[in-house]
Amino acid sequence: MQAVYLSGREVEFREDHPEPESGSHEVIVRVLCAGICETDLQLMQGYMGFAGVLGHEFVGIAESGPLKGKRVVGEINCSCFDCDTCRSGLPTHCPNRSVIGILNHDGAFAERVAVPQKNLHAVPDSLSTDVAVFVEPVAAAFQILRQQLVRPGQFVVVLGDGRLGNLCAQVLNGYGCRVMAVGKHTEKLAVLDRLDIETTLLTDAHPNRDVDVVVDCTGSPTGLPTALQFVRPWGTVVLKTTVAGEQTLALAPVVIDEVSVIGSRCGPFPDAIAALAAGQVQVEPLISGRFPLRDGVEALHTTASQPVLKMLLDVCDS
Amino acid sequence: MQAVYLSGREVEFREDHPEPESGSHEVIVRVLCAGICETDLQLMQGYMGFAGVLGHEFVGIAESGPLKGKRVVGEINCSCFDCDTCRSGLPTHCPNRSVIGILNHDGAFAERVAVPQKNLHAVPDSLSTDVAVFVEPVAAAFQILRQQLVRPGQFVVVLGDGRLGNLCAQVLNGYGCRVMAVGKHTEKLAVLDRLDIETTLLTDAHPNRDVDVVVDCTGSPTGLPTALQFVRPWGTVVLKTTVAGEQTLALAPVVIDEVSVIGSRCGPFPDAIAALAAGQVQVEPLISGRFPLRDGVEALHTTASQPVLKMLLDVCDS
Repeated sequence: MQAVYLSGREVEFREDHPEPESGSHEVIVRVLCAGICETDLQLMQGYMGFAGVLGHEFVGIAESGPLKGKRVVGEINCSCFDCDTCRSGLPTHCPNRSVIGILNHDGAFAERVAVPQKNLHAVPDSLSTDVAVFVEPVAAAFQILRQQLVRPGQFVVVLGDGRLGNLCAQVLNGYGCRVMAVGKHTEKLAVLDRLDIETTLLTDAHPNRDVDVVVDCTGSPTGLPTALQFVRPWGTVVLKTTVAGEQTLALAPVVIDEVSVIGSRCGPFPDAIAALAAGQVQVEPLISGRFPLRDGVEALHTTASQPVLKMLLDVCDS
Repeated sequence: MQAVYLSGREVEFREDHPEPESGSHEVIVRVLCAGICETDLQLMQGYMGFAGVLGHEFVGIAESGPLKGKRVVGEINCSCFDCDTCRSGLPTHCPNRSVIGILNHDGAFAERVAVPQKNLHAVPDSLSTDVAVFVEPVAAAFQILRQQLVRPGQFVVVLGDGRLGNLCAQVLNGYGCRVMAVGKHTEKLAVLDRLDIETTLLTDAHPNRDVDVVVDCTGSPTGLPTALQFVRPWGTVVLKTTVAGEQTLALAPVVIDEVSVIGSRCGPFPDAIAALAAGQVQVEPLISGRFPLRDGVEALHTTASQPVLKMLLDVCDS
């Protein structure tokens, strides 16, 4: 089958990649559409040392199981549901897990992908495939609510005007936070302006250590040091994006201001599906372009090098 | 008056340092005894860029005000009590504050020190001066409880077997946590062994990412990376010690494991006084030695270079 494959830091399109083998409790999903995420770009920089088919944001059609023939989206952590961590209610942290397109599990930039049956969620008929491909990143934004890191009425700064920053700003604004999105790209911030969310360019922002919660969606090593300039004493910095490798920073401000720096990763799919179905999160304005799967390498390089929001890959016909 | 003065990275004993001038709402305290803290050693490394009389752990006799003639200890943050931060209940984070012996305010390694009246707490007659000099660091340990970062029954690892690590281990053990103290010095850990607190050498520890809360009292840039090897997903790392300058580390584990990294600084004096008066925290075994004030420079260098716990400076006679 066709697939976009990462090995080392080299990504290539393969015409004849082997079909996925479905493990126990897995079903094969025929991929309709997939989205490119910042994490894909980090994987290409060596993050996680992943080798395999990229892609973890996708909509497809289940080829077997109870959802056979239906459009589905899939959670990306493939957990054992048998260890202490899974039993404690944290299966996304299962130490035995693989992660679709990220860790020991081929991803969805391919005609077919194997997904644990438990991970699948049916896509409501009212959601277009182009909207449903955002379920995974919208769920990541909802994880901030699931972790109870914000309360309505709080002053929240979202750092980074990219894909995830945009979605976090929308979700937190919808939750009742007073949101200010801070970014470097006027044209990206304009997407939020049109949704009546306050935005400002980083160069125009005046950090005053008065922000209750700062969400770092920069995907950059400068994100946390910048966040520490905005956050108030006893405030919270939510780290949403992972950076490959090490970074250098001064941690004394975290201690002096008694700040909480809290990581936040994958989130609840049902909340994301419900919010998208209710029109509470607008994702179509984020679609910057689309490529056929066979041009996936070009799509990745374009996403890495140009100020685009969400780039989609069209895979199979529905 | 006699004082131990820091300028740049040079510390010196001065025979004729100017007497402190008491600002409005301040009283002069005649210092009886003072303790050397890791922060003093960090200040000597350039932390905070402080120049002035060192010393922020002290017992003295108030020379004026409602506590005149009584033994007192003093909180170290001198706050305005008039700004938004103070009014919000966080005076220790007042942006207008000075900090005794740390920031724009001469400290207690001197015959006399000026202290805001509001900061003073009377020392109960039942507490010896040698015990009362530990009120400030014991309060710092109690801050972990005030921030509600632990619950009884949780598995807590305290990293670092120095002064603050010892006190944190005792306070958290007394609160009902299952505490394991991890350090590098058999003879320092032995102080906790004798209090029936579980200890292990770092070289013998097997980090297994199963610890609810890790308290970093190492005072070392290696503390946080080590803590991240111990803490469980959704667990908490409490940063208790400040490190001068920048450090290099990988933050991806914080995001992947959705860990909370939370700074913790000065704490509630009344809780510390009550615990010491009730014998719930044993501090006398921590006293490694004592020097007269005029040998304060030697005391600092000895504390920096040798595996000692608490070094005291005897200042004025009672």
